[in-house]
Amino acid sequence: MILGIDIGGANTKIASKDGKLVELHYIPLWKNSRLPEALLDIAKRLKPEKAGVVITGELADCFPDKDAGLSYIIDAVNNAFQNAYFLDSEGNFSKEKRRSIAAANWMASALAVGKEYENCIFLDIGSTTTDIIPIKNGKPLASKTDFERLKKGELVYTGALRTNIAAILKYVNIRGEKSRVSSELFAIAADAHLLIGNISPETYTCDTPDGAGKTSIDAKRRIARVVCADLTEISDDEIISIARQVMEAQVNDIREALKEQVKKHDISRIIACGLGEFIAREAAKDLSFDFVLVSERYGGDISKVFPAYAVARLLE
Amino acid sequence: MILGIDIGGANTKIASKDGKLVELHYIPLWKNSRLPEALLDIAKRLKPEKAGVVITGELADCFPDKDAGLSYIIDAVNNAFQNAYFLDSEGNFSKEKRRSIAAANWMASALAVGKEYENCIFLDIGSTTTDIIPIKNGKPLASKTDFERLKKGELVYTGALRTNIAAILKYVNIRGEKSRVSSELFAIAADAHLLIGNISPETYTCDTPDGAGKTSIDAKRRIARVVCADLTEISDDEIISIARQVMEAQVNDIREALKEQVKKHDISRIIACGLGEFIAREAAKDLSFDFVLVSERYGGDISKVFPAYAVARLLE
Repeated sequence: MILGIDIGGANTKIASKDGKLVELHYIPLWKNSRLPEALLDIAKRLKPEKAGVVITGELADCFPDKDAGLSYIIDAVNNAFQNAYFLDSEGNFSKEKRRSIAAANWMASALAVGKEYENCIFLDIGSTTTDIIPIKNGKPLASKTDFERLKKGELVYTGALRTNIAAILKYVNIRGEKSRVSSELFAIAADAHLLIGNISPETYTCDTPDGAGKTSIDAKRRIARVVCADLTEISDDEIISIARQVMEAQVNDIREALKEQVKKHDISRIIACGLGEFIAREAAKDLSFDFVLVSERYGGDISKVFPAYAVARLLE
Repeated sequence: MILGIDIGGANTKIASKDGKLVELHYIPLWKNSRLPEALLDIAKRLKPEKAGVVITGELADCFPDKDAGLSYIIDAVNNAFQNAYFLDSEGNFSKEKRRSIAAANWMASALAVGKEYENCIFLDIGSTTTDIIPIKNGKPLASKTDFERLKKGELVYTGALRTNIAAILKYVNIRGEKSRVSSELFAIAADAHLLIGNISPETYTCDTPDGAGKTSIDAKRRIARVVCADLTEISDDEIISIARQVMEAQVNDIREALKEQVKKHDISRIIACGLGEFIAREAAKDLSFDFVLVSERYGGDISKVFPAYAVARLLE
């Protein structure tokens, strides 16, 4: 078996190159360092012949800098897997530690997508971030670091689960008035998407901000706090309306970034994946593009771990 | 001794009615429940005759709703102090639990200020939030709940220390380009204000987002992460520039809310307090108002715990 591994700050995802095995493990690097043990477990259980690895977790703030983060993660991988190859942001595999291994998971996806769709924008909306990668003649054109990609609008730091609602919008409309919001980490995108039916409690694969449950009433409590209210002060309809405004703000943010890329690169096809595909669909809606969902082509499970699947295919 | 106590979600502040005793204790309610023990310690140490209490900590997300939060905090106070009186949002003291005790700390301050300045806007910029309370004929005119105050612009959820930079601005200018920012809790207002000299490490009285130190280099690392960079990718000048943009965004947010109140109530005097007085000064700068700093009148220590001092004076 050839295994693909995508190690992010919050999630570690694995997939086999035939796509039959797909797993998502919530391992928040900044909270604990279960990563080495988790990788050992995976290696023991699956005994892959080779592993292709992409890394984005080096930005987690348990590390003083990206080199320290990369070093820790690469050591954990090598300790678990004898034959691990790391993809860098140029699209090359390496067994050595080098800085260009940082934040290269989008490169795996974009190379895989570029083989099939020569000219397109690859849009991956994950739990935490959104990659928007222009591809021309099969070649990904994005900048090489997260810092540069953020500036260029090729990385939008919004996602379907973990994003603090206070970072998504500064105002909500409520009872016909524009209200400011609390800046605490009271509720996240997952709470909004749970309430409006975009995700299920099982897809809510990260911690809740208050440590409470993932039921509808728990999510409502959290969203009420965003306007400093509790459930005695605000109705269900008002909470649902706030949730819809969160969705709308995310859609607008991503649409704006998409438009920038489209304009810059003159491309009119979008290939979308990730557990936020439902946001991608809305963001692309009025842009009259060719729109392909990876989930429809490869299946929903693969869409959610696409960089892991892609790096396994590339290594083969 | 008559003691004033102000119990917020992050900080518990105490002051004696003569202003000689002033203490700020960082007790984040959502992280632990040291509050009962801390109050017992204070009671044992100071043995006050009576205590006047204001509460805002009921919104902390360790509590399912505000009643549960109030009940917990009131019990903790009564367990430590025999003669405790709680101020409500109508300005009355009570020994009984009632909902109107929620979020009334601004009422103590506004009543105290209203005695001296009959017509003014009281502006309290704390670690986490900003109260903007119109006072006419000595009477505070703000709404009675945080939910209503947020809608009316009488509460702006931004502060001098704890506010997530991702909730303050969505874009920063860097190297002549407009860059999006990360939505993680990578850096807080305190990091920006530390770097531009508005606060000292001693005034940085809350946890750091990454658990690292409060030196300049620590704060720089955190601010670099806001644009997904580390210190090898971004210069000191660029970091300082981001810190200044954070300050500017806070000043603008508060100025905008101030202007709304000024327009609505036709008042041209501002009385400012709190550990964010330096933000207040900038926010009021071009508005050609009468501007009075509580720190200049009562001293800087009292300014930082003004609701606690005010509730002690009111109880007397």
